[in-house]
Amino acid sequence: MNVVDLITKKRDGGEHTRAELRFLIGGVVDGTIPDYQLAAWAMAVFFRGMTDDEITELTLAMAESGEMLDLHDAVAPGVRIVDKHSSGGVGDKTTLAVGPIVAACGLPVGKMSGRGLSFTGGTIDKLESIRGWSADLGEAMFRRQLREIGLVVAAQTADLAPADKQLYALRDVTGTVPSLPLIAASIMSKKLAAGADAIVLDVKCGRGAFMETLDNARELARLMVAIGSGAGRQVTALITNMDQPLGRAVGHTLEVAEAIATLHGRGPRDFQELVERVAVEMVLLGGEGEKRTDQAAAGELVRRAIASGKAFEKFRAFVAAQGGDLSQVDDPSTLPIAPVIVPAPAPCTGAVARIDAREVGLTVAGLGGGRKAKGDPIDHRVGVICQVKVGERIQEGDPLCLIHAGDEESAKAAVKRIQAAYTLEDRPIAALPTILDRVTSR
Amino acid sequence: MNVVDLITKKRDGGEHTRAELRFLIGGVVDGTIPDYQLAAWAMAVFFRGMTDDEITELTLAMAESGEMLDLHDAVAPGVRIVDKHSSGGVGDKTTLAVGPIVAACGLPVGKMSGRGLSFTGGTIDKLESIRGWSADLGEAMFRRQLREIGLVVAAQTADLAPADKQLYALRDVTGTVPSLPLIAASIMSKKLAAGADAIVLDVKCGRGAFMETLDNARELARLMVAIGSGAGRQVTALITNMDQPLGRAVGHTLEVAEAIATLHGRGPRDFQELVERVAVEMVLLGGEGEKRTDQAAAGELVRRAIASGKAFEKFRAFVAAQGGDLSQVDDPSTLPIAPVIVPAPAPCTGAVARIDAREVGLTVAGLGGGRKAKGDPIDHRVGVICQVKVGERIQEGDPLCLIHAGDEESAKAAVKRIQAAYTLEDRPIAALPTILDRVTSR
Repeated sequence: MNVVDLITKKRDGGEHTRAELRFLIGGVVDGTIPDYQLAAWAMAVFFRGMTDDEITELTLAMAESGEMLDLHDAVAPGVRIVDKHSSGGVGDKTTLAVGPIVAACGLPVGKMSGRGLSFTGGTIDKLESIRGWSADLGEAMFRRQLREIGLVVAAQTADLAPADKQLYALRDVTGTVPSLPLIAASIMSKKLAAGADAIVLDVKCGRGAFMETLDNARELARLMVAIGSGAGRQVTALITNMDQPLGRAVGHTLEVAEAIATLHGRGPRDFQELVERVAVEMVLLGGEGEKRTDQAAAGELVRRAIASGKAFEKFRAFVAAQGGDLSQVDDPSTLPIAPVIVPAPAPCTGAVARIDAREVGLTVAGLGGGRKAKGDPIDHRVGVICQVKVGERIQEGDPLCLIHAGDEESAKAAVKRIQAAYTLEDRPIAALPTILDRVTSR
Repeated sequence: MNVVDLITKKRDGGEHTRAELRFLIGGVVDGTIPDYQLAAWAMAVFFRGMTDDEITELTLAMAESGEMLDLHDAVAPGVRIVDKHSSGGVGDKTTLAVGPIVAACGLPVGKMSGRGLSFTGGTIDKLESIRGWSADLGEAMFRRQLREIGLVVAAQTADLAPADKQLYALRDVTGTVPSLPLIAASIMSKKLAAGADAIVLDVKCGRGAFMETLDNARELARLMVAIGSGAGRQVTALITNMDQPLGRAVGHTLEVAEAIATLHGRGPRDFQELVERVAVEMVLLGGEGEKRTDQAAAGELVRRAIASGKAFEKFRAFVAAQGGDLSQVDDPSTLPIAPVIVPAPAPCTGAVARIDAREVGLTVAGLGGGRKAKGDPIDHRVGVICQVKVGERIQEGDPLCLIHAGDEESAKAAVKRIQAAYTLEDRPIAALPTILDRVTSR
């Protein structure tokens, strides 16, 4: 097989065979296909797209390029491994709340997670706000905790989908990131390698997300559901709003506190709604076969897990198992707090018409809560609390946000950015919906 | 300036500025832009194309990436340097005949030429059939011969358009060769760097050429004329037929003999016509300003140069100046001849409907008359002489071609290939036109 022939075939709109895609991904992994040929191929894919069959085969080839986890020995016989993935957004602490709720419903949740880059924070970075909590478990400890507690979040140890890692790094520097087939294959290859039987995808859509239009988000969701079907997994994708920050808290420690409030049923309206909805979808996918549940029953199960305190108990057990300080979990006001807290006052009276979520995320990064490069240190305490969200009215001088900063100077800069990120209008504005659409293979 | 931004701009259909194209080509030459980014950019250009302004700026940037020859000091004051380029085809020995004719008309011809690869032969390879003839002139000798004889063909010594060389090598392995803007820029950058004031382009079109359709050939011609205009050069492009081999001879020595016959006015009909037409276009471009000639006068000049023997005399002087054996020029039957000459008999009676020119070229390469890799030795003596061309009738058993081979075995294989390359039909077939179209900036 000849790489130039494969590039030419895709360039001219042809469809790759399974063998061709295996050959390509094999060449990525063993280094026999040079970067310049992969880059030309990726650009041809950007223009020509791929069929669902091609994308599925590409995803499987990337998943199987490294270790394929199997977690069934760490859960009760017959239990399905349900994973969850968010395409990332500003204030997205969903895993922190969904994990304990679903685990409290009896479904094991074992997640390998990443750290944050650019304007979105990573789940592990957020949990590290809790004194002593550690993501560095070996694979044996990961399995033991999954078996004993049913909930574990750890840094990735296994070499999952290394071909994806290499291809993504190349796409990042060749203008070929925004190719929906390649995005879908990248996300799904990691999920398949991580051993999921079923997956709930939270596809963020809007100005604060990578998918800015509903059409793109829908197509990405459709592709990932199709890959799942092709690979014998069940997948449900929710398309959710990221036209403003999710919930009210953006920043690591602030988000942990908000997630804990949500486990008590007292989260901000949009975040509470999203968390419960994702949990319901996971319960639905986890209860196939004899244990098949319907939407109403799953909703009841989820609400009971919260109201009974079982979800919060599960969170406590999980934090304790990974070395975290439970006193901070029981009283989030004892979590480390930033030395400077100032309001960003509204420059006029009106209703919030828009909040530039990306700009809010970048503001928090600017406060020291984000990384420019891998390995940069971050300040977990800094962030913003949105006091008003789209549709809510505010009086001139009242706070749009509270800024949590490391010093006065950075706080001042953040106030200006937040004021610019908000658009106020003097007319009634409707609140934004949380869930925009749902695509499922069920 | 950021390369990823430039790739993204082209990917999304944007138009590059002059500064951006200079930055790109600068990065090619100094190695600061990695191959994988160039490859992605070239593929984006394949899909998005370029405006005439972009192509012109790209061409100038590539031309100016190395030495820019100026040959005016080697010709009489006020004389224009007219160059000629063929996009390459099977049996294309045009330069061998056109050069002496045009030089005999008083227009200096100084050509840097290349060697052949794949199924087309190079002008220098063909001339090396003549004992003693050498293409290895230094730049000083090149200028002296141009001044004294008015005709010189030499191997490229100067570092002309190195950016083109690098970009072409990359395109060759990334499926981005067939991009008309990049092809046009590649050809024209070398012509501009070689110091031409005016250029006649012979754009071959058909199964034996790189441009297989008339639409593509017309667009390539239009682009090159536009580049010439943008760069202040006059350009005339002829689109000429390459649906069958040009003339009757294919193979180095055989083509030299055919070119000499053509200088005497006794070439095959199509080749004689093409040679005279290209010569007329060169004379027209050379005689601008006060010396402006019209088509009829130029035609008369060209025909007189042949009929008077002056064109042949010019060829003799040129061969002698570069060390060639004049006895072979004066009696081409003394040129080295292949040991095995066999006919490829027609399998049935009929008229020639098609000759697969590419297959004829590959047959000659298979006889040892072509290179697979740069630097491979070639057998100058081998080749084929087409006894019949499209439109001509033949009786079963009469020769389609004469095969000139190094041994019986390769001759046998060539006979079969030639028989398969000819399509005979039992109905009248029209001869093919030689010149298909003309595009000029004049």
